[in-house]
Amino acid sequence: MFIAMNRFQINKGREADFEKVWQDRDTHLKEVPGFMNFHLLRGPEEETYTLYSSHSVWASRDAFEDWTKSEAFRKAHANAGDTNGIYLGHPQFEGFEVVQTVE
Amino acid sequence: MFIAMNRFQINKGREADFEKVWQDRDTHLKEVPGFMNFHLLRGPEEETYTLYSSHSVWASRDAFEDWTKSEAFRKAHANAGDTNGIYLGHPQFEGFEVVQTVE
Repeated sequence: MFIAMNRFQINKGREADFEKVWQDRDTHLKEVPGFMNFHLLRGPEEETYTLYSSHSVWASRDAFEDWTKSEAFRKAHANAGDTNGIYLGHPQFEGFEVVQTVE
Repeated sequence: MFIAMNRFQINKGREADFEKVWQDRDTHLKEVPGFMNFHLLRGPEEETYTLYSSHSVWASRDAFEDWTKSEAFRKAHANAGDTNGIYLGHPQFEGFEVVQTVE
């Protein structure tokens, strides 16, 4: 199992705008082989920004990487909307392999 | 739903020791109200360390915070083992609220 996270620093006061971008997006994820689930996460508030993270779970790293090269990926990122002034810096990608599970 | 993550910077060459500490731990998590699942995640390798993250999913932030004040929490952290030289710096806690879900 593989978890792909992208960390976003969102300028204070723009949180609702950022969440709306994601709500309005058609991700096409459900059609993608190996896709398990997606969550948008709101993290801690820092002095100048609020941390968010996109969080998607995949059957394997390969399934995720295949998706990033696909037409479905291109479509999901084609209409990111008007994000002017929402972001403080670039998103930071982190991929994680599951090494232990307790359920 | 709430996701609690703790980020660990593990010195290069000590990854197996770190994973063993977690494998040998009796977390008692299954008995805890509101606990959904736990994963230990291995993230990207940086120049001087490998990033790991503990990742637990809870019914709510309250359920997680109740656990941190409980006897089960104290037990889970009582025997962290010999971690001498494993860590580069302190773990960094981040709590995330789920704001959108695609399944």
